[in-house]
Amino acid sequence: MRGDALDTPVPVVDLDRADRNLVTMQAYCDRHGLALRPHVKTHKLPQLALRQIELGAAGVTCQKIGEALVMAEAGCGDILLTYPVVGASKVPPLAALARKTRLTVALDNPVALDTVAAAAHEAGVEIGVLVEFESGEGRLGVQTPQDALELARRAHGNGPLAFRGLMTFPRGPQTAPFLAAARPLFEREGIPIATVSVGGTPGCWSTHELPGVTELRVGTYVYHDRATVAAGAATLDDCALHVVATVVSRPTPERAVLDCGSKTLSSDRVAPVAGEGFGLILDYPDAVIARLNEEHGVVDLSRCVRRPEIGERVRIVPNHVCAVSNLHDAVVVCRGGEVVGTWPVAARGCTR
Amino acid sequence: MRGDALDTPVPVVDLDRADRNLVTMQAYCDRHGLALRPHVKTHKLPQLALRQIELGAAGVTCQKIGEALVMAEAGCGDILLTYPVVGASKVPPLAALARKTRLTVALDNPVALDTVAAAAHEAGVEIGVLVEFESGEGRLGVQTPQDALELARRAHGNGPLAFRGLMTFPRGPQTAPFLAAARPLFEREGIPIATVSVGGTPGCWSTHELPGVTELRVGTYVYHDRATVAAGAATLDDCALHVVATVVSRPTPERAVLDCGSKTLSSDRVAPVAGEGFGLILDYPDAVIARLNEEHGVVDLSRCVRRPEIGERVRIVPNHVCAVSNLHDAVVVCRGGEVVGTWPVAARGCTR
Repeated sequence: MRGDALDTPVPVVDLDRADRNLVTMQAYCDRHGLALRPHVKTHKLPQLALRQIELGAAGVTCQKIGEALVMAEAGCGDILLTYPVVGASKVPPLAALARKTRLTVALDNPVALDTVAAAAHEAGVEIGVLVEFESGEGRLGVQTPQDALELARRAHGNGPLAFRGLMTFPRGPQTAPFLAAARPLFEREGIPIATVSVGGTPGCWSTHELPGVTELRVGTYVYHDRATVAAGAATLDDCALHVVATVVSRPTPERAVLDCGSKTLSSDRVAPVAGEGFGLILDYPDAVIARLNEEHGVVDLSRCVRRPEIGERVRIVPNHVCAVSNLHDAVVVCRGGEVVGTWPVAARGCTR
Repeated sequence: MRGDALDTPVPVVDLDRADRNLVTMQAYCDRHGLALRPHVKTHKLPQLALRQIELGAAGVTCQKIGEALVMAEAGCGDILLTYPVVGASKVPPLAALARKTRLTVALDNPVALDTVAAAAHEAGVEIGVLVEFESGEGRLGVQTPQDALELARRAHGNGPLAFRGLMTFPRGPQTAPFLAAARPLFEREGIPIATVSVGGTPGCWSTHELPGVTELRVGTYVYHDRATVAAGAATLDDCALHVVATVVSRPTPERAVLDCGSKTLSSDRVAPVAGEGFGLILDYPDAVIARLNEEHGVVDLSRCVRRPEIGERVRIVPNHVCAVSNLHDAVVVCRGGEVVGTWPVAARGCTR
């Protein structure tokens, strides 16, 4: 898909590749007896969420209530919200969500637990709880198995709440030691850990090596990007979303300017080992998108023998495809190399 | 505006401060006989564009055709598009735009010129042309006065095109030498340079020192941000857009997690001299937003004596406010410290 007939810049999704990615991951999880719970934050498209469920996913993962409401409206019947919802403003939308779908919320503190309990009371339905533990990332999560147990206890006997297990993101080096230390504590209290959920596309293919894990959460795998390719989780041929851009200027022999800046590609970087710049230009792999302004991609062509002309279309594999999806109101979708439609990114911008 | 009653994360605009910023800049331009042509890319709000015009702006600047169409529909009668539109897909929307407003397009190459000419023909109306020259930024722009003259010649006698002058962004050290060299060339050909337009909020207050400049284009000045404060163009008290966020976790004594990540704040950095991290937490200036994931802001509290509790609201001055506007479908607006409404960011996501 060169997209010569498309107005640019535009994100173009190869649905054949995306579907292959979905099928491959479901097969991996099936083979190893893992529940797959895809994270919709990458595509934010009900169409792909429903396809993931159709292929065998146990449900979907959402990061924010707004995102989850879009997916519940679209028919996703089982949603895990992997975000500690905190405060009175979250109660009404969380209650509305719980009335629409089987809901589980991950959290790591009692204030979030109280918020979820208030929503469950308001909705009059059960809401499940996973306790998030830290396994090495330094983001969210209780720090000790004892702290996990404290929260699980509060969820276990708390009216319409149901403790459903443990989760972490990403699966860090402390995952196995934490689980090994937590299990006897929970057993002694008679609190079952039904689910152990881990996440992250970069290390996804070794999830089965970790004993006791029951569920895999992955998002980026639907499209892949420069970061997951660099992590060895995919190849460039698996990348299913390209940004098609136009060369709008060639101010000097060594410089091109593309009509895609940080408002199209995001400013997300990749680790130096994954490559230079703000995306990989497939058609000119020696070019470097050296700098982004809001609407400009400034490209260093000094290492390119062949160089693009003004007006030429190029295809870019983004550094971080989840950020790209979220910048665009719609994606163009293709099958068999032909454009077959435009899909609104229905859950775009759902930061709340 | 602590925004305790608001659902978070949310961008909150202090309209009193924004208006003060607009008035101050208009007064500066009036004092020095400069035309002010505010760039809408920062706020993307018709309400503020019309206020800018009401205060005396000569018209507005837009970066993309989509943005300009929103502003033209809203009643902006004079628009400068500072982007080289290239290719057949741009002709119909550019023609539509030219039928709605007095239009000028900046460009630096003949392919863009041909695109603009085709649109002018299709629309049956005149479209003005500014030739963009490079003054030190290394982005767009012709490299020599002779190249500028070549393009001006092609615009000058080209059917419904009208050469209207020169522009550069940002105003770099080569601005004065370039203009000094260009003027005699243009005079010899009898091609008047009616407009000399320069841009950029960081250096805006010294625009009058540059001889021959007729017009100032600034965008960020409406809200200001950490970058323009660091550049000395404003103070923190001028910052008119804050992101209100909630502390959703305190995993360790030295760490807080906010509900605002790169999908709320963008991943844009500032120069080290402007400060650390991904935004300034006004309520905890010693805290560092050390890392962003898509929906998480991971805050290092190690230098803070006082530390926030879970559930607490904080106000953040973004690194780059233009990127923040563009991530959100709407902004909450305040006057006198009270919320007075929610405005859709009407030109959000207009990358084409």
